[in-house]
Amino acid sequence: MTFDPAAAFDPETFRRQGREVIDWIADYWQSLESLPVTSQVEPGWVRSQLPPAPPEQPETLDAVLFDLDRVVVPGLTHWQHPGFFAYFPANASGPAILGELLSAGLGVQGMLWTTSPACTELETHVLDWLCSLLGLPDRFRSSTGGGGAIYDTASSGLLCAMVAARERATQLKSNAQGMQQNNRSMIVYASEAAHSSVEKAAKISGIGQQWVRLIGLNTRGEMDPLALARAMDDDALAGHTPCFVAATVGTTACGAFDPVPLIAESSRRHGAWLHVDAAWAGAAAICPDYRPGILAGAEHADSWGFNPHKWMLVNFDCHALWMADRTSLVEALTMKPEYLRNNASEAGGVVDYSDWQVPLGRRFRALKLWLTLRMIGAESLRQRIGDHVAWATDFAGWVEADPRFDLVCPPSLSLVCFALRDGEQASTALLDRVNRQGNISLSHARVAGRYCLRLAIGGTLTQRRHVEAAWRTLTSLAATQEHSTP
Amino acid sequence: MTFDPAAAFDPETFRRQGREVIDWIADYWQSLESLPVTSQVEPGWVRSQLPPAPPEQPETLDAVLFDLDRVVVPGLTHWQHPGFFAYFPANASGPAILGELLSAGLGVQGMLWTTSPACTELETHVLDWLCSLLGLPDRFRSSTGGGGAIYDTASSGLLCAMVAARERATQLKSNAQGMQQNNRSMIVYASEAAHSSVEKAAKISGIGQQWVRLIGLNTRGEMDPLALARAMDDDALAGHTPCFVAATVGTTACGAFDPVPLIAESSRRHGAWLHVDAAWAGAAAICPDYRPGILAGAEHADSWGFNPHKWMLVNFDCHALWMADRTSLVEALTMKPEYLRNNASEAGGVVDYSDWQVPLGRRFRALKLWLTLRMIGAESLRQRIGDHVAWATDFAGWVEADPRFDLVCPPSLSLVCFALRDGEQASTALLDRVNRQGNISLSHARVAGRYCLRLAIGGTLTQRRHVEAAWRTLTSLAATQEHSTP
Repeated sequence: MTFDPAAAFDPETFRRQGREVIDWIADYWQSLESLPVTSQVEPGWVRSQLPPAPPEQPETLDAVLFDLDRVVVPGLTHWQHPGFFAYFPANASGPAILGELLSAGLGVQGMLWTTSPACTELETHVLDWLCSLLGLPDRFRSSTGGGGAIYDTASSGLLCAMVAARERATQLKSNAQGMQQNNRSMIVYASEAAHSSVEKAAKISGIGQQWVRLIGLNTRGEMDPLALARAMDDDALAGHTPCFVAATVGTTACGAFDPVPLIAESSRRHGAWLHVDAAWAGAAAICPDYRPGILAGAEHADSWGFNPHKWMLVNFDCHALWMADRTSLVEALTMKPEYLRNNASEAGGVVDYSDWQVPLGRRFRALKLWLTLRMIGAESLRQRIGDHVAWATDFAGWVEADPRFDLVCPPSLSLVCFALRDGEQASTALLDRVNRQGNISLSHARVAGRYCLRLAIGGTLTQRRHVEAAWRTLTSLAATQEHSTP
Repeated sequence: MTFDPAAAFDPETFRRQGREVIDWIADYWQSLESLPVTSQVEPGWVRSQLPPAPPEQPETLDAVLFDLDRVVVPGLTHWQHPGFFAYFPANASGPAILGELLSAGLGVQGMLWTTSPACTELETHVLDWLCSLLGLPDRFRSSTGGGGAIYDTASSGLLCAMVAARERATQLKSNAQGMQQNNRSMIVYASEAAHSSVEKAAKISGIGQQWVRLIGLNTRGEMDPLALARAMDDDALAGHTPCFVAATVGTTACGAFDPVPLIAESSRRHGAWLHVDAAWAGAAAICPDYRPGILAGAEHADSWGFNPHKWMLVNFDCHALWMADRTSLVEALTMKPEYLRNNASEAGGVVDYSDWQVPLGRRFRALKLWLTLRMIGAESLRQRIGDHVAWATDFAGWVEADPRFDLVCPPSLSLVCFALRDGEQASTALLDRVNRQGNISLSHARVAGRYCLRLAIGGTLTQRRHVEAAWRTLTSLAATQEHSTP
């Protein structure tokens, strides 16, 4: 008995089933508002609904979609729900979803230019487009010694930047001989509010968590540039190598912007690599109003990254990372065993993106970015971000005007951090009740030591009325909470 | 002027455009056989066809699809073409593509159990299913201290396993203090034929390329277990720490199987982590006939990985990696800053897959595996692999019977390595002509020093007639090559 290839891909079956799935997704988006944002299932419930063994014989798409509705959907926290205000958004759009679909349908693998030239060149091209849209300095363009690439997440991009910095500082000696052979410790700097991926990358890359200097913050949650300067000077005096500085533009907790121009001065003085992590806030640089704050100092950065998958309607995963000089990155990460050698790479003049990242293989992620930029257009993307910032400003105003609530810090773009004046316990109880209640989802953080609720606006379907409803829910729950306090 | 959310996602537009894209993909697959497998474009051609600036105003899907046909498709090497025999396959299927589509359409982010329980639990569940299908030892099941997770590629999975090994060997000291503080060098072992990702991971993790011992091969391309034992003993005597051994089951060049049981003995003796990289060959363990060879020694492995995206009809990217004891991995990679803390994680009893990997965020990759396993079924998946092995055996027979050609080594599963007897120049010329000719695509390798062409069968649409056509093309080009030789 032989296998019938039509069982794997039959065009007519695919057309029919594809329509069903497209309709299922459209129905899902239409039903989102009626679903509880946060999944209420207990640990193990999803697995308890699934058979212990995989099927021997093929099942129908209908059987799968039935289980999707029955088991998977109740087990989801709906990140695309208009009432999802937790963490940062991971928003999707019709064009992006279709771009992901095309990427899967084409099924090419772009590890080398030669394994699918369009996969590489379209990526280089849309990253140059993004450079223009954001107003990034020309040094990040592919036509210079720089250029951009797509990574799954900011964590992966940051790891690659840190390894490139490590190799630049040690003239490729760490790669060759290991970190153990360095006489001088490589030091990493970031603020106390930097993303956990900085410490994670220091651990993975063999630099070590103890060599990460978490620099203190001012009252606005921004890195203290004088403390950074002192720390770098001290380390240099102690015989260490200030190696990598991660400045954050839009911290995870409260959206603070580190003072990149001042950080850049210290970095330059010590020859350290300056990485700017603008994972969430970076998207807003497409709006001229927000650009100056977001790009201040970017002209001094060695690498600069943001996530189109957070606030630019490209579905997760899509992190865009640019290098001012791609040499260090490529030298640090290139591997060309015999089976990957090819004329185009050896002639030079082409980019092999596997030299820019940890994995060898790559899927065609540029498509979803290309479709989103083309089918939505820059003007609409700007309007959208402007709307979200305006709604967050309104929301912050309502918080300020309510005697029960407090802004924990000024709103940053579309992020508002607030708390009940009643103290931490009241705020944690409120968050818990809000997320159980169902129509909105928030997350929390600690800002200047104070526990706060976070409202991050950015959902694809979110409109002003959802932000208003969020406020109504919060105030009505806060009211019953007051009364129920003994 | 405000943004209209329907520009980002309008259900009715999505239904209409979704159908168009589904049809475009079905048409593409139907046209594949008429397209040249290998892209013939020159570097820069794709970019030269695209406008330098992104559009301000939205464009239609038709405009995008027009450019897809005009610019992208000619710039692709078609990995789904039935005549694609290069590298290893990265095969897709209708169900997998629909699974990827659903993942994009749901747009959830599974960094923590709590951020979408079904995203985590379905992944754990299908990885247990795969455990059963492959016949992997029970220690890799989630119900033990082990368990599996999906990564983008084998390179990323291997890096995580190596970091876990490094931390196990140094009691988390490398993470905390950096590799620099180790008195003993951590040593990594793999064969000369191991994938380049072993050396890449040693560089990234701060271990250093010079501490990777590339162990010699026997004539079949398998790691010499005595040479490994000697190297490990020598290193231990020299005061180094034998830390991580990567055994390959199915090498990239020629599909050789390292003797895992013997390698495991040395690893165990020195307390080193044993990782089995079965990226390509692993899928064939679903067939009882091939299982014993593939799984020999797996019961001693600390980690074991293979790529459903290579030979199991799940579209790239989908690497499955299991741990025998997940503790070291989680301890090495966990980061729980305040904004990620949640009741479920703190209560224990749930898996947070961001603790298993470099990135924080995760997309819902289990869906494409789930749809593939359910809609194709285990029996068909087995038949398919059996067919491919049978065709490779036939092809190897034709090579052997032709006086102009030579098998460079015995075929391994569905991979055949062969060369012209005329010498390396003749073989490289033949490969070049084959790939320009258009109906098939092959790649090359070097086996025991000898240059060879590689025919890797595994395409979704590939049938026996395509393998026959490949042989006809090769022999007819070889014939004209003989005549054109001066």
